[in-house]
Amino acid sequence: MDALQQAMASAAVDVETVLQQVLVSEDEPERRLLDSMRYAALGGGKRLRPFLVLESARQFNVSRKSALRTAAAVELVHCYSLVHDDLPAMDDDDLRRGKPTVHKAFDEATAILAGDALLTLAFQVLANDATHSNPDVRCELVLELARAGGAHGMVGGQMIDLAAAERDMDIGEITRLQRLKTGALIAFSCEAGAILGRAAEPAREALRGFAHDLGLAFQIVDDLLDVEGSTEETGKAVGKDAAHGKATFVSILGPERARAQARMLADQAVSHLAIFDEKADFLRDVARFVVERRN
Amino acid sequence: MDALQQAMASAAVDVETVLQQVLVSEDEPERRLLDSMRYAALGGGKRLRPFLVLESARQFNVSRKSALRTAAAVELVHCYSLVHDDLPAMDDDDLRRGKPTVHKAFDEATAILAGDALLTLAFQVLANDATHSNPDVRCELVLELARAGGAHGMVGGQMIDLAAAERDMDIGEITRLQRLKTGALIAFSCEAGAILGRAAEPAREALRGFAHDLGLAFQIVDDLLDVEGSTEETGKAVGKDAAHGKATFVSILGPERARAQARMLADQAVSHLAIFDEKADFLRDVARFVVERRN
Repeated sequence: MDALQQAMASAAVDVETVLQQVLVSEDEPERRLLDSMRYAALGGGKRLRPFLVLESARQFNVSRKSALRTAAAVELVHCYSLVHDDLPAMDDDDLRRGKPTVHKAFDEATAILAGDALLTLAFQVLANDATHSNPDVRCELVLELARAGGAHGMVGGQMIDLAAAERDMDIGEITRLQRLKTGALIAFSCEAGAILGRAAEPAREALRGFAHDLGLAFQIVDDLLDVEGSTEETGKAVGKDAAHGKATFVSILGPERARAQARMLADQAVSHLAIFDEKADFLRDVARFVVERRN
Repeated sequence: MDALQQAMASAAVDVETVLQQVLVSEDEPERRLLDSMRYAALGGGKRLRPFLVLESARQFNVSRKSALRTAAAVELVHCYSLVHDDLPAMDDDDLRRGKPTVHKAFDEATAILAGDALLTLAFQVLANDATHSNPDVRCELVLELARAGGAHGMVGGQMIDLAAAERDMDIGEITRLQRLKTGALIAFSCEAGAILGRAAEPAREALRGFAHDLGLAFQIVDDLLDVEGSTEETGKAVGKDAAHGKATFVSILGPERARAQARMLADQAVSHLAIFDEKADFLRDVARFVVERRN
């Protein structure tokens, strides 16, 4: 295991601890809800977004506790979006991270409520003064996470994605779709460290540029894995885009040009980090990891 | 129209204006999402929760703008919960406020996303500095709304409610269910004014006590309307609880004792407001309105 993988694994363990704390389940009537939330959020995933929060926070000497709680909040939003996206009325997926999806393991109503409660909990975690002593910082985190996750961010992207199967989209439209659907939350993850550290605008701008290119590279590889990956490797169903006749980066560019584009974007992402010193090396490494990943 | 009804109608108009502002729809690919959010949130409902925010805020001379934005945020959460509760996998309702429900007027996927985006927007509205100049106040609003709306509040109550059709519940369990499902958001609405006005603990405690009794009275009347009301009056399907064999205050107490209990709770709610002067008269009136309402 290389240094990046070690760092990501270690970050995932720390984030898991925080998620365990905020998802504590007591013996009460609504226990089934907490069980489904824990099922959705714990013990899985690459924890890429939390890692981006932690590494961006490290550039500004943010306390580990602040960074971890913010990272956990981002992951809660990511996990809620997966639960809702997997619903029968949406992407109708049975498998996620190698396990039955929440509506399969529980039921549809529970999955809807689990997603709602995970999303709500994310804001509860951020607004709590344990996340940062400065209330201006906490408000900015709430505001920016809501923007990234809302109608003009992730949810808006999901809405466009649903329409994408029904009509032809060009590369510009797909880029906009993905910038909202996966890019916005990745961008928030990278900027969160700057918010926590009250960083100056040039540093924020650099992280935004990094996140923008990283997010697109990430999505292109997602599309590639849907074409080239296996369910065993990815832990979810593959071949779905083609089955739904959905235009993707890969269907338009072809696999080879798509992969070249992803690598170019990863290099471009790294170039935005020139103003940071070697403390940003894991961010640089993660851009390459995102392109070479097999799940 | 009496003074209370005039005040509620006037408050509803003002809240509608704020909701229109935060739900501005531009000509963009995700327009369908904004359209469904507007469909869900605009032009309907008693706006009881916003009125409670405005009237509780008036006790502490909070600016109208702060109160209205907070009221709009609460209504966004209420509307999202209706959209998700009406889904086929949940209560499966076709009619709401006399109109087709969101998943009927649009589709199921859009309804899920509209709910998600309305919930997210509520926190975006609260965290914005236009809501209050003091970031501590904004954080407390976010934190308390998330608590009231989350797994140990409204969503938790909805989870218990789904299980209620499958097993017998006693009056204590139903009370706890309703305290979460409808009571928590009503309690937040009443306490929000105190948070905005940085009120002292006795005033908060009084508003909490008022809200607790008001919320239960409200729910008992909801159960009564499901038994005694008509679809024309209520704007939604009736007779559902009995059809699902669901235990309610009315099925256990009978209509007469249930109505007497609601009136007693309304009186008890008013008694909590003794520390307030005549500025709280609309809050006192609203407790009576809630019990006598026909929709």
